[in-house]
Amino acid sequence: MRNDERKIDELRPIEIHTDYIKHPEGSVLITVGETKVICNASIEDRVPPFMRGQGKGWITAEYSMLPRATEQRNIRESSKGKVSGRTMEIQRLIGRALRAVVDLDKIGERTVWIDCDVIQADGGTRTASITGAFVALVLAFGSLIDKKALSAMPVTDYLAATSVGILPDGSAVLDLKYEEDAKAHVDMNVVMTGEGKFVEIQGTGEEATFSPEQLQVMLDLANQGIQNLFEKQKDAIGKWSSSIGTSKR
Amino acid sequence: MRNDERKIDELRPIEIHTDYIKHPEGSVLITVGETKVICNASIEDRVPPFMRGQGKGWITAEYSMLPRATEQRNIRESSKGKVSGRTMEIQRLIGRALRAVVDLDKIGERTVWIDCDVIQADGGTRTASITGAFVALVLAFGSLIDKKALSAMPVTDYLAATSVGILPDGSAVLDLKYEEDAKAHVDMNVVMTGEGKFVEIQGTGEEATFSPEQLQVMLDLANQGIQNLFEKQKDAIGKWSSSIGTSKR
Amino acid sequence: MRNDERKIDELRPIEIHTDYIKHPEGSVLITVGETKVICNASIEDRVPPFMRGQGKGWITAEYSMLPRATEQRNIRESSKGKVSGRTMEIQRLIGRALRAVVDLDKIGERTVWIDCDVIQADGGTRTASITGAFVALVLAFGSLIDKKALSAMPVTDYLAATSVGILPDGSAVLDLKYEEDAKAHVDMNVVMTGEGKFVEIQGTGEEATFSPEQLQVMLDLANQGIQNLFEKQKDAIGKWSSSIGTSKR
Amino acid sequence: MRNDERKIDELRPIEIHTDYIKHPEGSVLITVGETKVICNASIEDRVPPFMRGQGKGWITAEYSMLPRATEQRNIRESSKGKVSGRTMEIQRLIGRALRAVVDLDKIGERTVWIDCDVIQADGGTRTASITGAFVALVLAFGSLIDKKALSAMPVTDYLAATSVGILPDGSAVLDLKYEEDAKAHVDMNVVMTGEGKFVEIQGTGEEATFSPEQLQVMLDLANQGIQNLFEKQKDAIGKWSSSIGTSKR
Amino acid sequence: MRNDERKIDELRPIEIHTDYIKHPEGSVLITVGETKVICNASIEDRVPPFMRGQGKGWITAEYSMLPRATEQRNIRESSKGKVSGRTMEIQRLIGRALRAVVDLDKIGERTVWIDCDVIQADGGTRTASITGAFVALVLAFGSLIDKKALSAMPVTDYLAATSVGILPDGSAVLDLKYEEDAKAHVDMNVVMTGEGKFVEIQGTGEEATFSPEQLQVMLDLANQGIQNLFEKQKDAIGKWSSSIGTSKR
Amino acid sequence: MRNDERKIDELRPIEIHTDYIKHPEGSVLITVGETKVICNASIEDRVPPFMRGQGKGWITAEYSMLPRATEQRNIRESSKGKVSGRTMEIQRLIGRALRAVVDLDKIGERTVWIDCDVIQADGGTRTASITGAFVALVLAFGSLIDKKALSAMPVTDYLAATSVGILPDGSAVLDLKYEEDAKAHVDMNVVMTGEGKFVEIQGTGEEATFSPEQLQVMLDLANQGIQNLFEKQKDAIGKWSSSIGTSKR
Repeated sequence: MRNDERKIDELRPIEIHTDYIKHPEGSVLITVGETKVICNASIEDRVPPFMRGQGKGWITAEYSMLPRATEQRNIRESSKGKVSGRTMEIQRLIGRALRAVVDLDKIGERTVWIDCDVIQADGGTRTASITGAFVALVLAFGSLIDKKALSAMPVTDYLAATSVGILPDGSAVLDLKYEEDAKAHVDMNVVMTGEGKFVEIQGTGEEATFSPEQLQVMLDLANQGIQNLFEKQKDAIGKWSSSIGTSKR
Repeated sequence: MRNDERKIDELRPIEIHTDYIKHPEGSVLITVGETKVICNASIEDRVPPFMRGQGKGWITAEYSMLPRATEQRNIRESSKGKVSGRTMEIQRLIGRALRAVVDLDKIGERTVWIDCDVIQADGGTRTASITGAFVALVLAFGSLIDKKALSAMPVTDYLAATSVGILPDGSAVLDLKYEEDAKAHVDMNVVMTGEGKFVEIQGTGEEATFSPEQLQVMLDLANQGIQNLFEKQKDAIGKWSSSIGTSKR
Repeated sequence: MRNDERKIDELRPIEIHTDYIKHPEGSVLITVGETKVICNASIEDRVPPFMRGQGKGWITAEYSMLPRATEQRNIRESSKGKVSGRTMEIQRLIGRALRAVVDLDKIGERTVWIDCDVIQADGGTRTASITGAFVALVLAFGSLIDKKALSAMPVTDYLAATSVGILPDGSAVLDLKYEEDAKAHVDMNVVMTGEGKFVEIQGTGEEATFSPEQLQVMLDLANQGIQNLFEKQKDAIGKWSSSIGTSKR
Repeated sequence: MRNDERKIDELRPIEIHTDYIKHPEGSVLITVGETKVICNASIEDRVPPFMRGQGKGWITAEYSMLPRATEQRNIRESSKGKVSGRTMEIQRLIGRALRAVVDLDKIGERTVWIDCDVIQADGGTRTASITGAFVALVLAFGSLIDKKALSAMPVTDYLAATSVGILPDGSAVLDLKYEEDAKAHVDMNVVMTGEGKFVEIQGTGEEATFSPEQLQVMLDLANQGIQNLFEKQKDAIGKWSSSIGTSKR
Repeated sequence: MRNDERKIDELRPIEIHTDYIKHPEGSVLITVGETKVICNASIEDRVPPFMRGQGKGWITAEYSMLPRATEQRNIRESSKGKVSGRTMEIQRLIGRALRAVVDLDKIGERTVWIDCDVIQADGGTRTASITGAFVALVLAFGSLIDKKALSAMPVTDYLAATSVGILPDGSAVLDLKYEEDAKAHVDMNVVMTGEGKFVEIQGTGEEATFSPEQLQVMLDLANQGIQNLFEKQKDAIGKWSSSIGTSKR
Repeated sequence: MRNDERKIDELRPIEIHTDYIKHPEGSVLITVGETKVICNASIEDRVPPFMRGQGKGWITAEYSMLPRATEQRNIRESSKGKVSGRTMEIQRLIGRALRAVVDLDKIGERTVWIDCDVIQADGGTRTASITGAFVALVLAFGSLIDKKALSAMPVTDYLAATSVGILPDGSAVLDLKYEEDAKAHVDMNVVMTGEGKFVEIQGTGEEATFSPEQLQVMLDLANQGIQNLFEKQKDAIGKWSSSIGTSKR
């Protein structure tokens, strides 16, 4: 039993609040336990210069935390004048993951900007961002379809992410909160599709290592958790749930 | 009658949601019509180098917008690597205004960081920030008092802010939403104390001017609106409302 | 009586030296007491990208101080790699103020760059900058007219600025020198037109407040001082003085 | 058979040239096929501020490419004034990986700076950097031991890295050169220890996914390749090879 | 004869206006033909960290141009957020040159900041800066001596600089104005001491070369011009002229 | 006799290794004693905006050191976010020097990027960079000629550089290694052509001066050393040696 009474294979409570901010084409507030992330999807009718004239679109992501999303206040990256390595890693991860389930040829020369802003952090902010951003992205495409600006849902499959890790006592656990994450020997983020394929696996032993057997246990836990996340996503996207994967690549 | 059915001297609906984020000493979500700002007050037990050894504290403010708080997505200031002139003006204004109603000698060598993050913008974000930040600040000091880390409320008076302006038809109006603000000939922000004193007046004619008579009408409207804001603040700070001004400078 | 023997409603001596630097279209050295500012107006035959194709022009301002314009040497903003919040506020103010008295539709797709470089500072540098920049601007437009590149003076009215403030003894005074400014409880900058309209009012109580009555006294002092500044400007612009306001918007 | 005649489970030729640059405590030129990286380990007798007084050391890594290490010349990051997200990811990875096999408590309050400078790139630069940096690190600690500045080798195990991937035809291959990497559907970097434990797994499907079965095949290939790298490392570190792991954590 | 009627070995008219700005310890406006530079010397009672505890001082220089000092307006380096290579070269040159004639052991742990701000440019700004800065430096040390903060003049010799060059017709000329400089094939800056020694020679053929004979002719012209500059400097420093070189190293 | 047994007019051993890196059009590793510099010449088929449409090319240079090229590790300029003044001076020097012996009208609208990366430093890195870059440049043009992309060698003469200096005992020496350079009173870099013309002379007395006689001795030493460098360059460029200067300007 963990100190928040969860079983080792139990996710924290998830809520996905849609239409959270009024301006974006898709907007979601996702809460995973005490972690809260605003995920906005904005659609711009052009692509970056290196992609022009190819008739396909692009998805790019940005990630940030409010200074006091965390126990200790962090200096704003805008004040420091540069984005940290951690932030860049996370925003590259989010963008890559989402692009894996979107048929970019179907969205025309458009850029989707995904903004994940963590307003309260308690571990798992990058995986919550991916899970929430997927919903915002589907809703944004849905709004284009409603406006007849897009003919079909270009999303080829569900996509969600969670973290797994190995605690100092050697036990593998699902969905670490900050207190667990801070002391874990191994930390792994897993992004999967509805079909059960991996999109991204990032497993890291910070001053520690893990065996092939431990890897397997962690991947099984992640798979189990992600199935639950798909259910929450399906509820949140409502009428668009049946359109996912219809335009398979 | 304005196009959102308000009278010229009518504020938009105000809500102040306290204890919004769990980590900060004081945290508020203020909504003014469709404008929504998270105002967090964080207390750090030291002051900037230039103030050390004087036995007094400091209050500093930062302001930011989520990229899609607005109709068009804005580039993040962290990505641009620098903070805009507009942002700097606003954060200097918020800090100055709050310092005017706090007895900095009474808070010891502490810095209060005020973070105003606009998650949805529809005009009046800087005045909403001041009004909400005041509440977050009082709650933060209250939490120190509750923890016996401070002996008395160092806030000397209420403080709230609103905007007034002159529309193209020459009429002066209170609390402009974005649509009005964008076309106004004169835009004025007024910060006042519970005693009816001014802390800050910033009146600007962008490619326009205003007469002494128009100035007077705008100041009267602002005063009237700010009285209503004080009522909302009083409700939000609850048990601390009676302590405001007891430690007069 | 103030410690430099001035009456409370008395400006410091003003000199406006025209054609100070040879390259700019308009160039002025303005001295207000011990404050000295070089104001250059440069005309560029294009506008920023966001204004192209509209057939109108733009005026933008930059402000800087030599490192040793002040009692203590300041680090150059170029060495720090960024422009301070104070500088940005001032340059935005100067640009806005000048645009209020120029008919931008009359100047074609041109940008006027106003550079205000303070070579010696003793209080009131931003208001001296506005007062001097107005003259440089008129002379720059005049040089275009002389060269037949512009058909009429696009300046709709005079424009000047001064500061007023409230000293610790409660007295309101006009045109504060640095020593007074540093200890003033309230500091207000007022920009007015020849017609007696306000363009900008910025009143700030740094850790202090001011009453409506005090506001009125300060505005009256400012108005009186600005009338004198208009006389100095008229002398400086010479033959162009009669053309101001002929092309009313 | 691949287009450079290698089998799918065959590494490119590896050479590790020690004592390459004269100043660093440890210096290696590693070549993996046409990829060439200078790996220098520099030892500084102090730690970053956040670690002072804890009696332990730190290892940090930096990574860079010469502008023309690649087919197309890249702009220097020093000229751009910022380090790219890709570079940050790689240098964080190298540092984390090396820290996993060093007992930081045994090196005293010292910082080891690992500099990996790619002088010629043909795929796999980050894994070549890790494999080469391990050798430079051991040699640097060895030089301290020789100088009696350290009593025992603080390295607890061998550490090497390679890449594996899935080509468009679905085949999994070991140690991708640039031409293969550019078209691979899945790209995975694996860092392992001499004991057969994982330190880091980063598998990414760029606009693609991979199944659990494919993951297993890739991990097996990586394990096989890394065994060969350990042999090369053992030769390169010579007399220090027997000291690895003697000071187990 | 040159197109401003000067002979090939004739300097432009020189004026050195002392006590130009009131705050600095030494302040000079130097005009060389149409080139005008404000040279301020500021004395700070500490040295940079790398020099602390050695009992000696330091001299550092900064150089800048007003945006419209030139025919075309230049973007401010503070707006660009970085200092250009040209500016850095010039400020390093000015600092090095002045340090060559000051006995840094005699000034205590002080830093002298030399600020050369070009308000109007017409060629030769770096050499005018050195010539003017020398005077500002002597006056700054003089003010310390007058205040009994320094016992003797630490300046060991006179120092002045001029430019020489070779025009397209092959003729060598002294003190090039901008029009000549822009078309010269060779441009050389020479800094010399009162004793006739060189401190710095920088000769550059931009897309051209020069022979040993041409070098000798240029050095002779420079020497002749610099003798005249020493006369102007002697007049400007007045009572301190006899103290130069009394504290020989 | 110097402490590395060299005579005062003796160069350190020189090696020029061609075709060092595979991607660039021209690539050289030059070693001058213990100084080692990779010089790459990359040809891009366009010119900077300010040169477009003139039918001529451009040569630009960048210079950098690996962090541990020196005895003490230096912070990377990419990490600091800016390029130092020293680096800018050197890269401007390299570019200017090479442009002096290339007929830019003959290379079409192309930019040659010269990258000089010091991998090991022991004095004279900027002169070694020029000497090596000349060879890389010739080889790069040669590769264009071999590919029929250029009709003739546009290099008008040989170009090489060395340093000379005056040691504390007053003796002038050729080709200073770091240990000598650090204590020299005068440091001079000389760039010459095969015809015996100067391209650049930069002589600097850091806190010291030099007489016209000393200047002459140094120039003679430099000339003698540079003759030897031309021999090494001729060997390195092999078949292209006879084409140098055939397309005289």
